[in-house]
Amino acid sequence: MNKGKQTPKLKVIPLGGLGEIGKNMTVMEYGDDIIVIDCGLSFPDEDMYGVDLVIPDMTYLEDNFDRIRGFVITHGHEDHIGAVPFALQKFDVPVYGSRFTLALIEHKLEEHKIKHADLRTVKAGDTVELGCFKVEFIKVSHSIAGALAAAVTTPVGVVIHTGDFKVDYTPIDGEPIDIARFAHYGTKGVLALMMDSTNAELPGSTPSEMALGRTFESVFDQAEGRVIVASFASNVYRIQQIADVAIRHGRVICFQGRSMVMIARIAMDQGILRIPEESIVEVEKLKKYADNEVCVFTTGSQGEAMSGLFRMAYSNHKLNIGKGDTVVISASAIPGNEKAVGKVIDQLFMKGASVVYDRLADVHVSGHARQEELKLMMRLIKPKFFIPVHGEARHLYHHAKLAKALGVKESNIFVMETGSVLELSKRSGKIAGTVDFGSVFVAGSGVGDIGSAVLRERRLLSHDGYFTAVIPIKRSTGELSAEPEILSTGFVYAKEADSLYEEVRAILHEQALMFSACPRSEWGGIKTTVKQSVKACLVKRTKRCPLLQITVIETE
Amino acid sequence: MNKGKQTPKLKVIPLGGLGEIGKNMTVMEYGDDIIVIDCGLSFPDEDMYGVDLVIPDMTYLEDNFDRIRGFVITHGHEDHIGAVPFALQKFDVPVYGSRFTLALIEHKLEEHKIKHADLRTVKAGDTVELGCFKVEFIKVSHSIAGALAAAVTTPVGVVIHTGDFKVDYTPIDGEPIDIARFAHYGTKGVLALMMDSTNAELPGSTPSEMALGRTFESVFDQAEGRVIVASFASNVYRIQQIADVAIRHGRVICFQGRSMVMIARIAMDQGILRIPEESIVEVEKLKKYADNEVCVFTTGSQGEAMSGLFRMAYSNHKLNIGKGDTVVISASAIPGNEKAVGKVIDQLFMKGASVVYDRLADVHVSGHARQEELKLMMRLIKPKFFIPVHGEARHLYHHAKLAKALGVKESNIFVMETGSVLELSKRSGKIAGTVDFGSVFVAGSGVGDIGSAVLRERRLLSHDGYFTAVIPIKRSTGELSAEPEILSTGFVYAKEADSLYEEVRAILHEQALMFSACPRSEWGGIKTTVKQSVKACLVKRTKRCPLLQITVIETE
Repeated sequence: MNKGKQTPKLKVIPLGGLGEIGKNMTVMEYGDDIIVIDCGLSFPDEDMYGVDLVIPDMTYLEDNFDRIRGFVITHGHEDHIGAVPFALQKFDVPVYGSRFTLALIEHKLEEHKIKHADLRTVKAGDTVELGCFKVEFIKVSHSIAGALAAAVTTPVGVVIHTGDFKVDYTPIDGEPIDIARFAHYGTKGVLALMMDSTNAELPGSTPSEMALGRTFESVFDQAEGRVIVASFASNVYRIQQIADVAIRHGRVICFQGRSMVMIARIAMDQGILRIPEESIVEVEKLKKYADNEVCVFTTGSQGEAMSGLFRMAYSNHKLNIGKGDTVVISASAIPGNEKAVGKVIDQLFMKGASVVYDRLADVHVSGHARQEELKLMMRLIKPKFFIPVHGEARHLYHHAKLAKALGVKESNIFVMETGSVLELSKRSGKIAGTVDFGSVFVAGSGVGDIGSAVLRERRLLSHDGYFTAVIPIKRSTGELSAEPEILSTGFVYAKEADSLYEEVRAILHEQALMFSACPRSEWGGIKTTVKQSVKACLVKRTKRCPLLQITVIETE
Repeated sequence: MNKGKQTPKLKVIPLGGLGEIGKNMTVMEYGDDIIVIDCGLSFPDEDMYGVDLVIPDMTYLEDNFDRIRGFVITHGHEDHIGAVPFALQKFDVPVYGSRFTLALIEHKLEEHKIKHADLRTVKAGDTVELGCFKVEFIKVSHSIAGALAAAVTTPVGVVIHTGDFKVDYTPIDGEPIDIARFAHYGTKGVLALMMDSTNAELPGSTPSEMALGRTFESVFDQAEGRVIVASFASNVYRIQQIADVAIRHGRVICFQGRSMVMIARIAMDQGILRIPEESIVEVEKLKKYADNEVCVFTTGSQGEAMSGLFRMAYSNHKLNIGKGDTVVISASAIPGNEKAVGKVIDQLFMKGASVVYDRLADVHVSGHARQEELKLMMRLIKPKFFIPVHGEARHLYHHAKLAKALGVKESNIFVMETGSVLELSKRSGKIAGTVDFGSVFVAGSGVGDIGSAVLRERRLLSHDGYFTAVIPIKRSTGELSAEPEILSTGFVYAKEADSLYEEVRAILHEQALMFSACPRSEWGGIKTTVKQSVKACLVKRTKRCPLLQITVIETE
């Protein structure tokens, strides 16, 4: 051991995905080398008005961009790939992922007009060297094709990051999660495990994708007209399974919705989704087929306005849904989307369709491991340190509790927060400081130019609108040089507000006299007084409090 | 039969509660007599910015106020009583309900400063005559004390309205739903049944309130510190059951949260909630007890900001929650509240508390009947006509399907819409027109002065804020009489927008020249041109589109 010179430690720094389900991103750092696992986005909460996307604060990576050896992407869901274009705009580093994952990233980069990205395809079993790190990719089951875990051999030991996963012994594509490989690492010795916590609250095991087969068979057995299936486009296995049943029932397949069409095409090109070309029919040609010969796959399982299903339900699509149609919503509502999904279901019933959804039948299984699966992985991998990832606080808490119950020393379990730095040596681990972290809002073409101040203003505006009075006065005399103008939007219905506006105008006229009566140095104070008077009037009359501005314009 | 003079028919007119869960209100009308069953509110959707409450449009009742013989209230939940104060402001009619229901209404009336309301207490088994209607009240089980169904004998037959209900054979208060009385009416013959559809999607039966006992026993057996229970204050049975277990475990009871304190007091005064006075402790005196001698009941089971639980979780309450505390959230999230509830749970875990909620244990049962219970009622009551009520479209659809499966003729099942008029004779029923209906928004002191136009403005404002340019010009010459002023809120962070503002100012200056170059008759057109130029600039630079106004002020 070099005296006087400290041996570097492995640093693990989550920049997202802890205390939240979304924008997953983890930095691993040793000496001069950094790798980044996943680079996701999250969707805005309702109170993030006008925000399109949320991405992790990458300041720490910007400050250390020359040390980044690569991005390792576990799979192609938005919360794992969504921020890649924003990252690649800042630092030009290679991105590793499965063929399907990279195809989805490529599509994103095209939309962002990013060319010449260095995308490097890997497959399960491959190992790549990124600086001092050796990363092996291991096949896992998940609700998307091409999902991989990463086993990272570092100078201080092996760190396994599961990505999102479940244990599916009977996957649709016949390739189960490679539990033997996790066992291999476990037998050799694993320093730390970072594992998906999404379903850590739930006992038992998540059912296999295969378990849905019976439901789909019975839906198609009973359907007398068209069958319209809404699901996530990237859940290729789901689509494969349903398409197989549909074709067996003598139906052709039609894809609708931008991302569904795009991803289905990619998956078929890659041979992951296997549907005979002659079974695929463009929407324009569907009329040639009887209703009971048609199966449509569409976007919109989350009730998104303007998605395929939404437009079909609201008669705003070539394939309007009506009596005789059977609609299968093969997904569960992501928290926050429950009401939107319910409304689309209601609308479909009102149109006379028959609707099959998760409250009624087994049309969806989760892509995330429950407690029994997590226990299996923990027993196979036998990590010294455990870091629950991908979850809200309650999920991380339950996952940590589970690890403790399986014998991981409590002091070796790190329920981390985004931005914290975990330092690991072969023997010990400790939280050692934090780096810049947080949420960066993307809105329109702006990245990070909207902050909490703007959101606060928008919240105020959304609540009671605004009310602005413009008072034009002559700079020389302080007399009104025109009638005061009231500008108001979103406050009260103008027609019903005539008497209120009159009252405010009277206040403005009366108080504007003060400008001519007082020296210019006091005009600021007068403006404040006017504002208070107007506010008092509005609140008294309406019990509401719009965003209020008084603007004095000094004219010639 | 009187030739030339038509026999009146019974009219059933839902003014709310169909196609929605909320603001239940049903009009029954025969000849000169009208009764109204329930008078509820609903809470605003997220896109109803700034709206506090939503109540039914009561225009039809206002137009016919002199014929209203009474309001019949089935129970005291907000979606059944919330609009009573707004109704009584318009028409002074007697209100019938159980003692507990009326106490809750009375409290509401006090808040609205309504005195001298004519509230008339009834109990199960009572019959009141309201014009040509005879209304018998029948005990039902529900998640609130004092819930009653109404059996209305009309000139054309008996109409039964269940209100909200479930079939609980082992209720906490020992008084089960009076199924024999429903059977009695069924045997005599029932013209029409209006039945709660909330859980009509779900097979099986809703468990008895009693079924939760085991969970609560085990929570208190294991809890080492304080136990804090969040639940609906009006669910007196829930509170009774938990309080009994708490007291058996040697704990005192403390009520927190405005509505919890108020409703617990009413329920104890009425003898519905039976807790020995010596077991009840004010919050100030809790310090005298060890943590394992304390049980707190609080509001906040829906994650509401500023509720008791919320403030305890965020360290803004006398009883801040921390390590050692056990929190029981004895409710399920009402659709739309899932995220808020999740956030409070996360916060509680972060504070070190142990949290028990519906994903983990049986801490909640619904108050609404599932399919087997609905079938029982349908078989007992054997109505000629069936009208599913209280539900979104999907619930009504499933309920109708159930009725059909139990032998109600399809043409005798009416899946109605709010505002439709169902005309019933002894033999036939048909939808005959509509009356005024809809949602009236209550905001601040305004009732109905906010409509869709204002909400649309607020939505726009919430998305990208607003941007207003004020251009002061001399009326005589069209020259600028002061610098154009830019007013903007919620659009971009001002500091980062300097160059954008400069650009807009340049456009304003340049285009303002047109005012002096053109006759006054063309100024309107110039204003439009300026607006287009500014808009093009903002959209190009930000890809956002704030609410944009150009105001020209003509000064002396």
